[in-house]
Amino acid sequence: MKLKQAIELDRKDSLKKYKSHFLNSKKEIYLNGNSLGKLPIKSIKKIRKTIDYEWGDRLVRSWNEKWLDLSDNLEKKLAKILGAKKREVKIGDSTSINLYQIVFSLLKSNLYKKSLISDSFNFPSDNYIIEGISSNFNIKNPTIINYSQDISAEINLIEKAIKKSPGILCLSLVSYKSGWMYPLKKLNDYAKKNNSIIVWDLSHAVGATHIDLKKTNTLAAVGCSYKFLNGGPGAPGFLFVDNSIQSKLENPIKGWFGHKLPFKFSDKYEAANNINKFDIGTPGVLSMVGMEAGLDIITKATTKSIRKKSISQSEYFISLINQELDSYNVKIESPRDPLNRGSHVTISHAESWKICRTLAKGSKKFPKIICDYRPDKYIRFGISPLYTSFQDLYHTINALIEILKTESYKKIKKEKNRVT
Amino acid sequence: MKLKQAIELDRKDSLKKYKSHFLNSKKEIYLNGNSLGKLPIKSIKKIRKTIDYEWGDRLVRSWNEKWLDLSDNLEKKLAKILGAKKREVKIGDSTSINLYQIVFSLLKSNLYKKSLISDSFNFPSDNYIIEGISSNFNIKNPTIINYSQDISAEINLIEKAIKKSPGILCLSLVSYKSGWMYPLKKLNDYAKKNNSIIVWDLSHAVGATHIDLKKTNTLAAVGCSYKFLNGGPGAPGFLFVDNSIQSKLENPIKGWFGHKLPFKFSDKYEAANNINKFDIGTPGVLSMVGMEAGLDIITKATTKSIRKKSISQSEYFISLINQELDSYNVKIESPRDPLNRGSHVTISHAESWKICRTLAKGSKKFPKIICDYRPDKYIRFGISPLYTSFQDLYHTINALIEILKTESYKKIKKEKNRVT
Repeated sequence: MKLKQAIELDRKDSLKKYKSHFLNSKKEIYLNGNSLGKLPIKSIKKIRKTIDYEWGDRLVRSWNEKWLDLSDNLEKKLAKILGAKKREVKIGDSTSINLYQIVFSLLKSNLYKKSLISDSFNFPSDNYIIEGISSNFNIKNPTIINYSQDISAEINLIEKAIKKSPGILCLSLVSYKSGWMYPLKKLNDYAKKNNSIIVWDLSHAVGATHIDLKKTNTLAAVGCSYKFLNGGPGAPGFLFVDNSIQSKLENPIKGWFGHKLPFKFSDKYEAANNINKFDIGTPGVLSMVGMEAGLDIITKATTKSIRKKSISQSEYFISLINQELDSYNVKIESPRDPLNRGSHVTISHAESWKICRTLAKGSKKFPKIICDYRPDKYIRFGISPLYTSFQDLYHTINALIEILKTESYKKIKKEKNRVT
Repeated sequence: MKLKQAIELDRKDSLKKYKSHFLNSKKEIYLNGNSLGKLPIKSIKKIRKTIDYEWGDRLVRSWNEKWLDLSDNLEKKLAKILGAKKREVKIGDSTSINLYQIVFSLLKSNLYKKSLISDSFNFPSDNYIIEGISSNFNIKNPTIINYSQDISAEINLIEKAIKKSPGILCLSLVSYKSGWMYPLKKLNDYAKKNNSIIVWDLSHAVGATHIDLKKTNTLAAVGCSYKFLNGGPGAPGFLFVDNSIQSKLENPIKGWFGHKLPFKFSDKYEAANNINKFDIGTPGVLSMVGMEAGLDIITKATTKSIRKKSISQSEYFISLINQELDSYNVKIESPRDPLNRGSHVTISHAESWKICRTLAKGSKKFPKIICDYRPDKYIRFGISPLYTSFQDLYHTINALIEILKTESYKKIKKEKNRVT
């Protein structure tokens, strides 16, 4: 393993200039952009302006001057990133609420049979949401597909489940555990042929992979913006509904912002006749303003270049793990084929929690390295091509060698944080 | 009408020092705190710290260090303001979503008959929400009580509606149009006797009136925090559920933050066994941080003192309108009895829209005065006792006299803003 090689790879990296668009600490390596993305420098000014001038000085007038167009502007930018049309994306409440809205409205629409399918790779909140809907609607519990191992979803099992019980599926495009990435178009096409629809959760994919929702025949999706989109803590989620089915869906939560003319204060609810019908209440302006700078950076860098770098970085990282950590009982828990992998690499070790804490503390031999632990034995390393360098990955492997060789992780006490 | 009197009233005002806790423009009078409250000075620093240090520097670690306790801290403060226990208030998504959660869960609980009642004084979004729920659940459309006039709700009609069809009511404690304030305890007690429950929307009341949810036997409520609570544009809404019925209610939107142990990532949803079960997705941290300073100011000033000043200011304002504007076809559209009035005063005039715009523009004779127009003929003047002075009200009357006498409003063109 040679530092020279990492330096050379960084030198050739066409995206390296984007690191300076984010606030970076010199003293640590941040490999947790898959949980909370870094702060874009421009967001600082934007949010300050929103507080000091728009809220502080212009007050209620800012609704007309700025805030009413805020989500619209962000939606246009995000739609481009997703390969969607501008009136197909809605930014607003949390991902869980967005998923609730879509699945509920699909069930209500009678476009598909009332069967719900998910898998064990899906993010728990998604499964809670659809299970909650099924229990409230007196329809059968969702079918949860289980696989024979934790790394790759078995596509034939998904197809079998669709065949057996066509209806509404919910899957995470990139699994939060192993980083497995599903063949989007293939599954959408299979679902369509079998009178089914897949609602994709893009949370762990968007911003670090290349997604083209239209070309892949995606009909519905949700996602969050605080990971690889760098929108800030608890930044709003988003939903996508293809134009072809929009008019058939009805928002179950009929708040005034989904009204055709919210400020008419009319007695009767008349849904907006476009994607805005999925709006609910007054949008959280401060949280929304934090999203814009991140979207702009991704648009400039292009998702194709981001994806290319992500693959070359995860390949590099995995090759180093294979080469250097094999003798320390470290197992790679991510797919080996980059086409089936998102932008984080997961490893396992019996002492994952302690290793993770040791990395975070840093030492004389290595800087603080922030990655995350997922119960019960996994460590995830998030690669954010916009600010992760090859040298970051090199130093991380070096630190892991040091920790595993000296068993310094044994000094860590047992208590665990709540968010890990 | 004498300026001296206003100056004297301001001199005696025990809350006058709180104005300096907010960002104030010297050049205008802001009577729109009932729509968007002013920026507390301390919020500027708090939000900056959240961005620069917590997001920018500490990144994902801030969840453990700060953000996971954020809503809990705010809920304790808000609970005190509302006269509730600390585990009875949940801050999170928008008011409309909060109302959806409560009404849906009440319907599902079978605690009450599946009858929904509201009135024409209620905020439109509330009526849209409950109408939406009724259409999705195949229960009868909500009964909407209409009154013989626009100023005061007729309590006997509400009681009649409850008698006729006991179940679940939704009312706004202070009506957004006339400022009518309902007798909270009286109606709660009547509802209880008749196996009914009232879900109160406190949006136009909280922060400018004195509310004691426990003493008034309130069982359920929602509200927003961007009006008299000064939480910032689109700051989160809140919900209140009395301890006595909490265990019987189930959140229809089962996101991971409502789980007993969200970061266990377990397969099965197990609801938190307290108010946290009403959480859904990742909270919008930036929007939430903006709430704290406003709550602290209200706690210090006390809602009793705020209410006292609010009444004395609205009485003063109404007496001036009676005295000075009677000859200009201005009608008072708010209740005359202060015990039935919240903290805004509504007037009507055939040219309300134009008058409102003229006030906002200011002139050589008067400063810019920001109030708001509500279709089709109303102007609302929001009194925020924490920063509204008697002189503000005096100058507003003066400006109205000037505008009506000279008919300067006729210069205004017809187009209307979206938010007014």
